[in-house]
Amino acid sequence: MNKQLALAALRQELGETNVVTDPEELLCYGYDATPDLPEGKPDVVVTPQTTEQVAQVLKIARRFRLPVYPRGAGTNLSGGTVPLRGGIVLCTVKMNRILEIDPVNLTATVQPGVIIQELNQAVAPHGLIYPPDPGTVATATMGGSVAECSGGLRGLKYGVTRNYVMGLEVVLANGEVLRCGGKTVKNVTGYDLVRLFTGSEGTLGVITEITVRLIPAPPCRETMLAGFAQLADAGNTVTHIIQHKVIPATLEIMDRVTVEVVESYARIGLPTDVAALLLIEIDGIPEVVQREAETVREIVLRNGGWLQTAADDVQREKLLAARRAALPALARVKPTTILEDATVPRSEITTMLLSIEEIACKYRLTIGTFGHAGDGNLHPTILADARDPEEMQRVRSAVEEIFRVALSLGGTLTGEHGIGIAKQRFLPWEMGETGLWVLRQIKRALDPDYLLNPDKLVPQEGGEAN
Amino acid sequence: MNKQLALAALRQELGETNVVTDPEELLCYGYDATPDLPEGKPDVVVTPQTTEQVAQVLKIARRFRLPVYPRGAGTNLSGGTVPLRGGIVLCTVKMNRILEIDPVNLTATVQPGVIIQELNQAVAPHGLIYPPDPGTVATATMGGSVAECSGGLRGLKYGVTRNYVMGLEVVLANGEVLRCGGKTVKNVTGYDLVRLFTGSEGTLGVITEITVRLIPAPPCRETMLAGFAQLADAGNTVTHIIQHKVIPATLEIMDRVTVEVVESYARIGLPTDVAALLLIEIDGIPEVVQREAETVREIVLRNGGWLQTAADDVQREKLLAARRAALPALARVKPTTILEDATVPRSEITTMLLSIEEIACKYRLTIGTFGHAGDGNLHPTILADARDPEEMQRVRSAVEEIFRVALSLGGTLTGEHGIGIAKQRFLPWEMGETGLWVLRQIKRALDPDYLLNPDKLVPQEGGEAN
Repeated sequence: MNKQLALAALRQELGETNVVTDPEELLCYGYDATPDLPEGKPDVVVTPQTTEQVAQVLKIARRFRLPVYPRGAGTNLSGGTVPLRGGIVLCTVKMNRILEIDPVNLTATVQPGVIIQELNQAVAPHGLIYPPDPGTVATATMGGSVAECSGGLRGLKYGVTRNYVMGLEVVLANGEVLRCGGKTVKNVTGYDLVRLFTGSEGTLGVITEITVRLIPAPPCRETMLAGFAQLADAGNTVTHIIQHKVIPATLEIMDRVTVEVVESYARIGLPTDVAALLLIEIDGIPEVVQREAETVREIVLRNGGWLQTAADDVQREKLLAARRAALPALARVKPTTILEDATVPRSEITTMLLSIEEIACKYRLTIGTFGHAGDGNLHPTILADARDPEEMQRVRSAVEEIFRVALSLGGTLTGEHGIGIAKQRFLPWEMGETGLWVLRQIKRALDPDYLLNPDKLVPQEGGEAN
Repeated sequence: MNKQLALAALRQELGETNVVTDPEELLCYGYDATPDLPEGKPDVVVTPQTTEQVAQVLKIARRFRLPVYPRGAGTNLSGGTVPLRGGIVLCTVKMNRILEIDPVNLTATVQPGVIIQELNQAVAPHGLIYPPDPGTVATATMGGSVAECSGGLRGLKYGVTRNYVMGLEVVLANGEVLRCGGKTVKNVTGYDLVRLFTGSEGTLGVITEITVRLIPAPPCRETMLAGFAQLADAGNTVTHIIQHKVIPATLEIMDRVTVEVVESYARIGLPTDVAALLLIEIDGIPEVVQREAETVREIVLRNGGWLQTAADDVQREKLLAARRAALPALARVKPTTILEDATVPRSEITTMLLSIEEIACKYRLTIGTFGHAGDGNLHPTILADARDPEEMQRVRSAVEEIFRVALSLGGTLTGEHGIGIAKQRFLPWEMGETGLWVLRQIKRALDPDYLLNPDKLVPQEGGEAN
């Protein structure tokens, strides 16, 4: 059997302990954190420990024409790691060394299996931070977050992953090793391959080393909670804050549904008699923080809201924990949680919030909306039960309508979760047939055998998975 | 004649006034601002006024298999617009409208022919700036600077062009119109096409519309001039400033050769008894500026330098003008000015500066070095005479050695000028054969007929232009 030969080759190159074929174990790699998707079952999970081993895996995969699914911690939210066609799951968790922290150039170089939070803990003693900050910082890997171009809570002020990746080592589909970018702030040698691989969802290559930019940790911060009786007032507050040229590090919204669910889950004393809460964090040097916090207070009051300031780090952690609890709390309410990340220009936040309310009403669904309001990146979260086909049909209709509204407002299908499997059918709505053609041409150019994470991001020509 | 048919088709689509074939006029489009390169001669220069006309030009070019060279103001410094194979120069200067300034979302949308400085003048009344700031802001177009991913004086703190481009409209080689990105801060729909076209040097498509991010103008700034008796002290000062987590908006160096030439050219009272000057500008809110300026002063003094502060805007403009005069002043000394932009990690600035001095000595050449020391982006500028073949041979050897040293220090061939024609032969040194393969695959995927700015950035397989 070809597959037996492939397994033997993998065992020879990687050693027995890095080649998993136990059926119970394989099951765990058949899905990721995305609901309402088909599951897959890999033939084998490999855990290479070096770039050379990754290259060997890709060469063996090519020889035996087996698909390869790069995978970090599997916290993906668009099905990016689901092994739909069987084959090889290439899990990078054993490549988990921080290779260098360079406090002079303000960079760090890591292997892909390093957890985001571990990197931040390691650079903290140097007074530095790595700003990209997805909800899953404590579990997600650097490799996965670069492959998905993660966003997070600090995107508004600090940008997203693509703004921090300076250099990459990537193993291509043919097993060759590419190095691009580096430690220089400026680099225009060739096409921008660093950004091309960042966010390519494992479809163009396997990332084996990452050099990121670090920034000085802000010396001071103020964390505020604002409450509003009207959803539109919260939305307008967000727009006005930016318009007044205050760029908070964090500017998060939780609507009534989310607040109620989080409070009943976490019992941290959130006020539940509101239409929406905003969680606002200003950081920088003390004088700036003070001035900007005052501006924020005025805007909140002018929009009919109230404002509390976290008195100390304990209160601050509580507020941030409440926001981070939004998804797990909502997930407890009903068996199936459909988390979306339709994103609009900041000026359209209020329209988008009100549209989501209408859509929830129209399709008789419970939708909790929270998210990164400051950068227009909302997470309408539909609470449903996958065992109820009629309800799931309404869910799908509601999701489609949310996307149509977001796009009509100049927005995008996905701010930070990626296309993966989950959003492929909507891709032409945003990119058009010309855009799809470009994506397919690039995919074909770098992975002509279509073996790297097939069926993700860009649908193969001729329709569905085959 | 095929060419006559092509010209007739172009005249029909664009109108007589947008199709130039006068031989004297064509001569002006045979070169750009790069020295020591072969010149070309186009068959025709077209000046389309709409995206639709650009699409028509590309369709006609394809039909008649004529190369197309997109061109803005022609300030390119690596030969990016030279029409080596004849064909069509597509000049975007008539697409020069600012389409929108959006002060709520902090964005602007422009046509490619808009001059960078015009955009900054238009957004200034809103208290906003567009930070990318190449030396040619007063003449270079937005389209050209996006296609080349320009850097400039503010790159250290504010980043380069790729950090500001949010959305693009691009006409592909097949004449189809692609829109990618948009006004959302976060967007991970598909591959990062916005960044792929940014810096692609006109080889993948013609940029016809650009949406950029703006930022609030810093309310306060302080401009300082520091002088050093030793070149190494200036270099170490640069490294120490960053290491102390002060990120100046501008941190420029001029070495002795440059200072002397600038002073004799512009007579603005620069002290010429120094090994190097640093021009340092801190911006932000007053408290921060004051604090950071104090840190800079301490570091300069500790490294044996002296420091002056510009008392007012007149003095400030003088200092900035001195820096901007570096290239034109050097260019006056000898007939041929070879401007390089080898770039190294900031920590290696001192080593690079000293290496350039050694190389100048070794090859008996006058090299003035100035540039963006804060981001490791130096401009060693060789003063020579193209009519002296023996000297030009030494120049080429010196350039090669500069690149070898930069790469050995973890640097790059080009920080901001691009590969164009000028640096193609060095490309494998940085990217390896695997990197070249990736570049070629992408080029072939999007421009299979090899008609878009041929012979630039990535050499065609099988060697030289054919």
